[in-house]
Amino acid sequence: MRRAISILLVIFALLSYGLAWSQSSLMKQAQALFKPIPTSPPSLPGNVATPAKVALGQMLYFDPRLSESHAISCNSCHMIGMGGVDLQSKSLGHRWQYGGRNAPTVYNAVYDVAQFWDGRAKDLQAQAGGPLVNPLEMDTTEAHVVEQLKGIPGYGPAFAKAFPGMADPITFDDVRKAIAVFEATLITPDAPFDRYLMGNEGALSASEKEGLSLFMSKGCAACHNGINVGGGMYAKFGVIELPGARILPPGDKGRFAVTRTASDEYVFKVPSLRNVAITAPYFHSGQVWDLREAVAIMGSSQLGAKLTDDQINKITLFLGSLTGKQPRITLPILPPSVTSTPRPRPGAR
Amino acid sequence: MRRAISILLVIFALLSYGLAWSQSSLMKQAQALFKPIPTSPPSLPGNVATPAKVALGQMLYFDPRLSESHAISCNSCHMIGMGGVDLQSKSLGHRWQYGGRNAPTVYNAVYDVAQFWDGRAKDLQAQAGGPLVNPLEMDTTEAHVVEQLKGIPGYGPAFAKAFPGMADPITFDDVRKAIAVFEATLITPDAPFDRYLMGNEGALSASEKEGLSLFMSKGCAACHNGINVGGGMYAKFGVIELPGARILPPGDKGRFAVTRTASDEYVFKVPSLRNVAITAPYFHSGQVWDLREAVAIMGSSQLGAKLTDDQINKITLFLGSLTGKQPRITLPILPPSVTSTPRPRPGAR
Repeated sequence: MRRAISILLVIFALLSYGLAWSQSSLMKQAQALFKPIPTSPPSLPGNVATPAKVALGQMLYFDPRLSESHAISCNSCHMIGMGGVDLQSKSLGHRWQYGGRNAPTVYNAVYDVAQFWDGRAKDLQAQAGGPLVNPLEMDTTEAHVVEQLKGIPGYGPAFAKAFPGMADPITFDDVRKAIAVFEATLITPDAPFDRYLMGNEGALSASEKEGLSLFMSKGCAACHNGINVGGGMYAKFGVIELPGARILPPGDKGRFAVTRTASDEYVFKVPSLRNVAITAPYFHSGQVWDLREAVAIMGSSQLGAKLTDDQINKITLFLGSLTGKQPRITLPILPPSVTSTPRPRPGAR
Repeated sequence: MRRAISILLVIFALLSYGLAWSQSSLMKQAQALFKPIPTSPPSLPGNVATPAKVALGQMLYFDPRLSESHAISCNSCHMIGMGGVDLQSKSLGHRWQYGGRNAPTVYNAVYDVAQFWDGRAKDLQAQAGGPLVNPLEMDTTEAHVVEQLKGIPGYGPAFAKAFPGMADPITFDDVRKAIAVFEATLITPDAPFDRYLMGNEGALSASEKEGLSLFMSKGCAACHNGINVGGGMYAKFGVIELPGARILPPGDKGRFAVTRTASDEYVFKVPSLRNVAITAPYFHSGQVWDLREAVAIMGSSQLGAKLTDDQINKITLFLGSLTGKQPRITLPILPPSVTSTPRPRPGAR
């Protein structure tokens, strides 16, 4: 009897060791492919994040007077407190028009290789000006943004503090720079997956680890890797099998519009999967609301793999572990308009 | 020579005394008519403001999923950080439709005798449900608001904490109650005028005091009095002289629509003048952007007085002293949607 118990204990010890070894191996594999989000934001080349500049960027981010209508701000489509998105298939912009593609989250966007689904802006600073002048979004002009801000007395000192020593600190470029440094602060560290990558075996459940293992072994991590679990490269959507036209509308050729290169047809930036569980709907077309369906589509369109329901569920559970600590932002007190401030031009309806 | 200096000193002392006496008299007169905003919010009858209820109300206030489109929240038209208004003539609502009247500020609204320009809601709680179901604003229904919130898992515990012991805490009435207690916190104490009312002679400049004196002697304070410098009664717009149809459109008969009483034609709630300098445009029609013009119109339409430019300027300066300490609000992290959460219905365009 004692001998039997001893044998059982040895078997148990060996099993435990094997399990620990395999977990440790999974962790090492993950650590080689992914990186945790740091607790403090990265610095932007050529755009030092002084407190005054971050504070100005935060004001601009929330100020609807940057739009032609004075009704739409950056935060309208990239809502702080709601995953950095608007939870719409496509955003509602100027005069209730739909935008061209699903609004990506602003959270952790600083870690992406480029901005927009087609990568047409090289960084946050280049991106920040885009929606302002897009007729489907905020529908203003670079000149009017500057005129508007110069017409709001409180912005003069705020720009002067953010861009000291400039003869004329209120320029469109400064607007973009200030918004970019604020957006760079919008990172979501401390997700369960980050804690796991930092060596905490208990940060992920057994099912989440199985999902992580599948995520790597099935090939998802070939594109979705790095600090943002995506966001680092481009890929053709439907490389193995084309999804339906609802999900991949033939009219939107993605990066082709940027490069005019035939091989870039239907190529998009591989999106970051950070916070993906709270930023539905999915893909550039925003037609898929169920993360499990999105995982299944990725399996068939990108990997030629028909994933089982169990595999899909486990990968989806793993993706849930990518939801990090959401930024807590205090709403800035915006400088008041005065009688001479340019007025909203909401457009006829 | 020394005698001449002595006489001058006595004259100077007498003048100073006279000035101090007249200031003190002005202060006493003001203290009899107005009251400072307290530093902590008032309690609402039958609606205790527990921290859990205020926190829930704050989430609901910022959550655009309360609207049919999921693109409009309370904060869209009553923006925290922008005077509690949207700085529009009329607000842009569902499908870019204009609202019927200029959006009043949410700041200090708790002190008003009733809500809306026509007083059709008796308090904040009654008001809070209005824009939700107004087809020109958020265009949803009471039933859909409840269905929507029940479809967002994180709201269940938040309502249970805010309304403990209820079998079904997510009701439309609870939504209104929670929003109301949050809105009651949006007060702006510590305006220069408040400090003056509390005995600080130096809180107002000489010109602001002259403006205050005119504000009382010309009759403005007959209606604009109390804690909110208005907000306490109703008055006919154009009692002496009708303003033009642009400012008083014949189609909007104000409180008449509520009471169906002929004497209530073109009667509106006397608006609070708290923070008026930062909440243009003015009047229920929102067509006047210059506060001095608004003051002049009030003089002629309500008092039969043609105010001089100097009087208008001084009254306007005084009104600037009504801008208080603006609320600092940290954006709540909203509970995420899940696959089964009812989706936005933005409407065709």
